[in-house]
Amino acid sequence: MASSPIWASRPKTRGLVLDVIRSARSISRVELAAATGLTGATISEVVRELIGDDLVVEAGRGAPTGGKPRTMVQLNPLARYSVGVQLERNTCVIVVIDLAGRQVARTSFQGVATMPPERALPLVAAQVDALLATAAVDRDRVLGVGLVSYGPQDRRAGVLLTPQPTEEWLDHPVALRLAEALGLPVLLDNDAAAAAIGEYWMGTVDPRSTYGCIYMATGIGGGVVVAGEVYRGSSSNSVEIGHISIDVNGDECPCGNVGCLENYAGPSALVRQALATPGLGRRLALDPTATDVLTEFARIAAAANTGDAGARGLVEQSARYLGHAAVTMACLFDLEAIVLAGPSFAVAGSIYQTMIQQEVDRRLFARRAHQVRIVPSVNGSDAAAIGGAVLVLRSELTLGHPHPQDRARAAGSDEAG
Amino acid sequence: MASSPIWASRPKTRGLVLDVIRSARSISRVELAAATGLTGATISEVVRELIGDDLVVEAGRGAPTGGKPRTMVQLNPLARYSVGVQLERNTCVIVVIDLAGRQVARTSFQGVATMPPERALPLVAAQVDALLATAAVDRDRVLGVGLVSYGPQDRRAGVLLTPQPTEEWLDHPVALRLAEALGLPVLLDNDAAAAAIGEYWMGTVDPRSTYGCIYMATGIGGGVVVAGEVYRGSSSNSVEIGHISIDVNGDECPCGNVGCLENYAGPSALVRQALATPGLGRRLALDPTATDVLTEFARIAAAANTGDAGARGLVEQSARYLGHAAVTMACLFDLEAIVLAGPSFAVAGSIYQTMIQQEVDRRLFARRAHQVRIVPSVNGSDAAAIGGAVLVLRSELTLGHPHPQDRARAAGSDEAG
Repeated sequence: MASSPIWASRPKTRGLVLDVIRSARSISRVELAAATGLTGATISEVVRELIGDDLVVEAGRGAPTGGKPRTMVQLNPLARYSVGVQLERNTCVIVVIDLAGRQVARTSFQGVATMPPERALPLVAAQVDALLATAAVDRDRVLGVGLVSYGPQDRRAGVLLTPQPTEEWLDHPVALRLAEALGLPVLLDNDAAAAAIGEYWMGTVDPRSTYGCIYMATGIGGGVVVAGEVYRGSSSNSVEIGHISIDVNGDECPCGNVGCLENYAGPSALVRQALATPGLGRRLALDPTATDVLTEFARIAAAANTGDAGARGLVEQSARYLGHAAVTMACLFDLEAIVLAGPSFAVAGSIYQTMIQQEVDRRLFARRAHQVRIVPSVNGSDAAAIGGAVLVLRSELTLGHPHPQDRARAAGSDEAG
Repeated sequence: MASSPIWASRPKTRGLVLDVIRSARSISRVELAAATGLTGATISEVVRELIGDDLVVEAGRGAPTGGKPRTMVQLNPLARYSVGVQLERNTCVIVVIDLAGRQVARTSFQGVATMPPERALPLVAAQVDALLATAAVDRDRVLGVGLVSYGPQDRRAGVLLTPQPTEEWLDHPVALRLAEALGLPVLLDNDAAAAAIGEYWMGTVDPRSTYGCIYMATGIGGGVVVAGEVYRGSSSNSVEIGHISIDVNGDECPCGNVGCLENYAGPSALVRQALATPGLGRRLALDPTATDVLTEFARIAAAANTGDAGARGLVEQSARYLGHAAVTMACLFDLEAIVLAGPSFAVAGSIYQTMIQQEVDRRLFARRAHQVRIVPSVNGSDAAAIGGAVLVLRSELTLGHPHPQDRARAAGSDEAG
């Protein structure tokens, strides 16, 4: 209670109304009042303000209901844009989305992993500039950039607390430096948390539900969303599912824990296992010296799909390990659904979905209370980048910074603080 | 957002003010406004209402600050009471607390585990009646009963979803039957969640913090509190830490999972391990036919404290397993502290606290972001029963049912929805 001061209620009301308009696509003021529980007078005032800010437009009349036909309102999708940047070990993905969450531009490039941040971040900024220019997006309409990456992070400071991809990235002010290079506000967030909130925004899940996301790229991360808000914990370093232990007697991980899920089920582990299986590495044309783990892993996943018994065995074992961790996640957070997102579910997603669902159905403590559905992400490989852009939309709009001119802050967000 | 309708804000304001008065013990209206962020006019109105309901009294003047001396307000602790009942496999604990959370009466008795609910619940009701009579508590001032037990549960329906202690308890309407027998509202909740919220109420932890609780009696449960509210998840069956797996290759548990923590670290497991250790069972005078696991476990814990190497080895191994699960819990929920509560931490609590702290310090993924403190419960063995009573106080007062005459509902609470 004490963490939710009363003065936050005005912008929250505005964000709520905008969120309902967005998910309804087209809605009357009367329907808005019913959906939000707000009074007609409050709805009229908030909608007037949103129209004044060009975020919402009136658009025709609703179906006749006996009385006076009702004027419908809807989002003005091209009024604002936001950018999502995902920094991964191998790849950097950049997307631009409009106010309705539709992707209007996308690019990706490799090589960031081998550069120090002083070189990598200007390169990212140049790519963002080029993408906005190509898509002919007016920069004055860009709310900001959601930069998403792995944890742990100091989200408020906009700093990564991990020596990845290299030691030089640890404690580097990534959000501030990217903001300076771009002249746009940048907020840093966890990639898996971003992927999770992106699913909500895209309408995959019931907005009132409690659901989780397992995000698998090179590493494995997680996010949980409760009634439309990211579960943050004390420092936004929550749901690090890749580094929960699945084996109390397992090997030590560089993170300090033993038996970490990532070392059993993640792409690097599978590539290692495949290379150690006689004949399999050669059959799948794996390159033992490759630095791009995702491409090597994709070969294994593709072979599993087409029936190679060795590859299939490895992917199924990985799926069982993930299922095991999904049971822990669902058991602790009491989830209704878990979304599988990220590039490493792209190829063999249906094997993963089927086997994780089986594990959860068999093993979950509270299965008498309700089922937990395992579902594929609507945003697929780009879920984290899209989610990063969505976090900016939500943060800027909900906190009542609708004018892109208000760019005092370079980094940080109090959205769910 | 959608789950928190606007009409709930009035009672929330009232609950917030009451909570600040309670934790401050004595506070002026001006200080209340500063602490809550509410306007002076709102504070005056809410305080007037609380005084009218006899929940708050004016009590002298504050220290002079230069201007007019301020009238202080404080809780009227004897205005209301609530009852906490913990149903465990071996023992039933009943406590009565006043509005300030002080325990005014306590009793416990054994044997409930061997009875069907039709016989056990009237016995519990008779004990509650006797306790209230002995403590001379006016029944009109009793807000209700918090009945706490293990999960899974259907909390809204007031039903246990587990065949424990015996098959007859599965799906039995325990909350409704106890409410009928007592003529008092009864809400059912999870014992570990109750223990967790009890710590907050008693002031052990910062009210804005995110912390967890590991509750160990015969079984092992868990709870998480975020800014003063129990983390509920989708069906209030969250944080079942006794049934997360610590070994993907472990034995199957009756719950359906494999390698469950409870079967490695819980009191039953330790008694089994002690009896299987040559000479140890006899040395500690363990009874292989005993049904009261807690008493047998207490012998092992006591011997560990006094330096019996065999017993100490078993308790330390149990603590390492619990530390392993605590790392998972802290890693997923991003906790600032974990409270150890319940009767099975009573004897060897300091061994557990030390070793769990060591594991968390060494193994936690986000330890660069902040430390996680392992702390003993202020409510000790009775943490769950006291927490059950606290949940009733919070629920009734926050939801604006200050008059004990309002007893339409027999079971259920929407406190944290």
